[in-house]
Amino acid sequence: MGKPRILIVGGVAGGASCAARARRLSEEAEIVIFDRGQFVSFANCGLPYYVGDLISDEKKLLVANANLFQSRFNIQVRLEHEVIDIDPAAQTIQVKNLQTGDVLSEPYDALVLSPGAAPIRPPFPGLELPGIFALRTIPDSRRIREWIEVDRVKRAVVVGGGFIGMEMSENLMRRGIQVTLLEKLPQVMPPFDAEMMTAVHTHLREKGVDLCLSNGVKGFVSDKADGLIVQTESGDDYPTNLVILAIGVRPETTLAEQAGLQLGDRGGIRVNAQMQTSDPHIWAVGDAIEVQDIVTNEWTLVPLAGPANRQGRTAADAIMGYDTQFRGVQSTSVCGIFDMTVACTGASEKALKRAGIPYAKVYLHPGHHVSYFPGAHPIDMKLLFSPDDGRILGAQAVGYEGTEKRIDVMAIALQASLTVFDLEEAELCYAPQFGAAKDPVNFAGMIAANALRGDAPIVYWEHLSAEQVMLLDVRNPDEFEAGHVANAVNIPLPELRDRLSELPEQQDIWVYCQVGQRAYYATRVLRQCGYNAYNLTGGYKTQQAMDQALDPTHTLHPEHPRP
Amino acid sequence: MGKPRILIVGGVAGGASCAARARRLSEEAEIVIFDRGQFVSFANCGLPYYVGDLISDEKKLLVANANLFQSRFNIQVRLEHEVIDIDPAAQTIQVKNLQTGDVLSEPYDALVLSPGAAPIRPPFPGLELPGIFALRTIPDSRRIREWIEVDRVKRAVVVGGGFIGMEMSENLMRRGIQVTLLEKLPQVMPPFDAEMMTAVHTHLREKGVDLCLSNGVKGFVSDKADGLIVQTESGDDYPTNLVILAIGVRPETTLAEQAGLQLGDRGGIRVNAQMQTSDPHIWAVGDAIEVQDIVTNEWTLVPLAGPANRQGRTAADAIMGYDTQFRGVQSTSVCGIFDMTVACTGASEKALKRAGIPYAKVYLHPGHHVSYFPGAHPIDMKLLFSPDDGRILGAQAVGYEGTEKRIDVMAIALQASLTVFDLEEAELCYAPQFGAAKDPVNFAGMIAANALRGDAPIVYWEHLSAEQVMLLDVRNPDEFEAGHVANAVNIPLPELRDRLSELPEQQDIWVYCQVGQRAYYATRVLRQCGYNAYNLTGGYKTQQAMDQALDPTHTLHPEHPRP
Repeated sequence: MGKPRILIVGGVAGGASCAARARRLSEEAEIVIFDRGQFVSFANCGLPYYVGDLISDEKKLLVANANLFQSRFNIQVRLEHEVIDIDPAAQTIQVKNLQTGDVLSEPYDALVLSPGAAPIRPPFPGLELPGIFALRTIPDSRRIREWIEVDRVKRAVVVGGGFIGMEMSENLMRRGIQVTLLEKLPQVMPPFDAEMMTAVHTHLREKGVDLCLSNGVKGFVSDKADGLIVQTESGDDYPTNLVILAIGVRPETTLAEQAGLQLGDRGGIRVNAQMQTSDPHIWAVGDAIEVQDIVTNEWTLVPLAGPANRQGRTAADAIMGYDTQFRGVQSTSVCGIFDMTVACTGASEKALKRAGIPYAKVYLHPGHHVSYFPGAHPIDMKLLFSPDDGRILGAQAVGYEGTEKRIDVMAIALQASLTVFDLEEAELCYAPQFGAAKDPVNFAGMIAANALRGDAPIVYWEHLSAEQVMLLDVRNPDEFEAGHVANAVNIPLPELRDRLSELPEQQDIWVYCQVGQRAYYATRVLRQCGYNAYNLTGGYKTQQAMDQALDPTHTLHPEHPRP
Repeated sequence: MGKPRILIVGGVAGGASCAARARRLSEEAEIVIFDRGQFVSFANCGLPYYVGDLISDEKKLLVANANLFQSRFNIQVRLEHEVIDIDPAAQTIQVKNLQTGDVLSEPYDALVLSPGAAPIRPPFPGLELPGIFALRTIPDSRRIREWIEVDRVKRAVVVGGGFIGMEMSENLMRRGIQVTLLEKLPQVMPPFDAEMMTAVHTHLREKGVDLCLSNGVKGFVSDKADGLIVQTESGDDYPTNLVILAIGVRPETTLAEQAGLQLGDRGGIRVNAQMQTSDPHIWAVGDAIEVQDIVTNEWTLVPLAGPANRQGRTAADAIMGYDTQFRGVQSTSVCGIFDMTVACTGASEKALKRAGIPYAKVYLHPGHHVSYFPGAHPIDMKLLFSPDDGRILGAQAVGYEGTEKRIDVMAIALQASLTVFDLEEAELCYAPQFGAAKDPVNFAGMIAANALRGDAPIVYWEHLSAEQVMLLDVRNPDEFEAGHVANAVNIPLPELRDRLSELPEQQDIWVYCQVGQRAYYATRVLRQCGYNAYNLTGGYKTQQAMDQALDPTHTLHPEHPRP
């Protein structure tokens, strides 16, 4: 292409990256970004913190503006210009100037669709009432800020417990607002497995959030005293001054559908590895497209900024004739939830089940740094891996400081197709305030590798049938007394070698301790002495989390004994 | 081996790991640890913080004790037992009970040497004077604590600016002691390249450390007023109450030499990939051995806890007939220095030069998280990679929060033989408080990949010859005025496209900005317009660091203009 005309629809993340990259590849190209909004390249990930006034200067959210695009990149940005039609045969788009109402036709050599996604707004009765907001744009956040101040909001209901729901709950609390969080599922943060979220449920409640799981919205009615009442499926009513809808987003595909572009089963625009749509002159990037998951190979919707940027660069490369291929997504993500951090990469257990992919898993609860240095916090970790070759399939971590670090390491390990045997051998940073000579990542690899090698086979709490196996608790008597699993027999690890005669020779023995380490030692002792011993991965701590995940409406105390 | 007798000399890190692993592999083996000290498996990495009273309870440093080894692992620990001789032919050792003086002969099937390393004590005159300490054991730290309290230490001299020197400087300052740090080299932290340490030099001085680089100790004399005077090579005297010798450690090889075991050129015990010495019944692990660097393939001494633990497990596996192979070391390390964190993995530039390995490098200074979220700090990063295929050879990072996280990611990428092209594509955790949609790791990969692809070739400040090239500063005029490199011409990036006629068509143009990003954009513009443009990697910030590294005796202000 000599002097191509590249038009880009949508100037945030993917679109902006594509434009800048296209300029770096061609000084000659004419590059125009159209955006129906007032801003280009703004920091939408920062919006909840702007509502929370942690970021108080709106200007900080403007990563770049139209002038910068012009002066730095010679890229034209036309704001408040909505692309209303595409004619793929003629290679033109119809653009409406939202200020004047004029409609112009613009020819293109390459068209890039980066329209993003829109908040899902189910047809709830009363959805149009004042005080009900979604959060997607700077004007959205301005309106919420104004509403909070003008209406002196005291109580808010956040609908949806995903990333935005979590961040909005935290930020509204930061403003001194009492928050009720309604989530239809029995857990928050759907990309995670349920048992990994029980500590988050507890944390949310400790922070004062009124967390209502397994309860969805039925509708909204106005109320003289409070402004609004949120009616729920359980029959409970929640009076409030402010509702944040954070149910999720759906890809913006109106234009793509009008243009006859192929969509996928998940409702996003279908593209190839070069971000090209079914029309050879149209590319698409960002939240509007479907992407392939590198673990499950399934088409999926992953509205994340990092992949959107990579997609933008890939599309620019493709347009300019480079053969860059998008390698798919692994859905690495992180969320700060008050003092906690939750992070994951790759597939969850439920995603692997859905995809019919064989997997094994381990749970662990290592300290984020050595226990002898002040301030050590545990990280709850779950590692999913192939039972055949140990290849990493996914990882989840929940904790405080140092949590997302371990997931970043797992993410690049997954990208490199490493196995749990490689994690065992990883050489990571260690000083007392940063980790341990055996880092949590090493531990995860060791537990998994020991299981795969058959040295210390692991079993899962959900498979426990206390009639068929002997359940052995190797913790100290005081720990056992404070709470244990029904039908468990207590033989503390230090006494095990002397009390082998108490154990059944024909029956499988499932061993647990608090987090899995002593049970591992016990399993090794027993297997070497001829017993069929297995380690219940994650120990009593994981058992408690699973138990609570099955009954998430209340918070069990860790010391609460099983009935 | 049916019921082998495994004797282990030294019960910290490698030795303790080896013993525990051996037990997990064999219930039948007789396992005995001998240690001449009073403690087994103590946290020597915590000792500086015990001196600093950040860890105030000595018991916390005892990771395990002899009773735990016995009760949990059925491992005998004989403390205050010094192994004084090995008879490899007879497969026996002579052990002296340090309390009774008795010497016993103990037979072994497998002997594991884990004697560690000893602080280097050069033959300085006056070295025996009271108040001069090294720090390696719990009794060492006790003595220093007592000396600080009894002698009411006000001024200390730390000799040596490596890991222990850094941690001791911080911890003595924590105790309210004025610290002079003497380092013979022109930089602290020798595993890092000099220009990466200039920010640390500034930080140390800002924190009140009297940092004396390029100055070594000549000797010590006692002084009536102050207790001690440290005499230095520069002729300056430092009166003090306390001297910490932190010059480094040397492998403990007395026993190995007596036994006729092969040593390497670096003075450590030579072992194979199964940790076996030149005697087939003797293994060696930890700080006493030489290991192979996976980047340079050179034999080296790497006294780090993580590798020592891995070595211990490898030796146990080998003794029990498993074919585990030690993969070598990559020297991943981290150090907290007051508020800063420095971390590295793989080879430094000087190590690559020494080994004659071709390399390319990039410098960058990204924020540890997005700039719009409060509290963003820059991380100074340096990435070394193969100029042929982009394979990662080493990485260094200096900053605050989030610094060692990026090195952990680089460490596992290096382990997986990933390239800079893989770093470009890495999908890491992003939310505003944790990183950026383009993480510093991605940026490092992108800059390097753009250079390798020829899109934006990079050049190094140390090769700058202002006579032969045009030096172009594309920062804004106010930045240029505040300080710039001699002979640089200022054309701000936004004006570049309109001022191309001012540029020479035949001469190479070396472009710089503050950190490298605008220079990258400019380089792309210029190359597409037919100019031979190159990006000076790391920008003015790296230039200033290099400048300061050449003259480390004083701290340049960042805005200080070049003469």
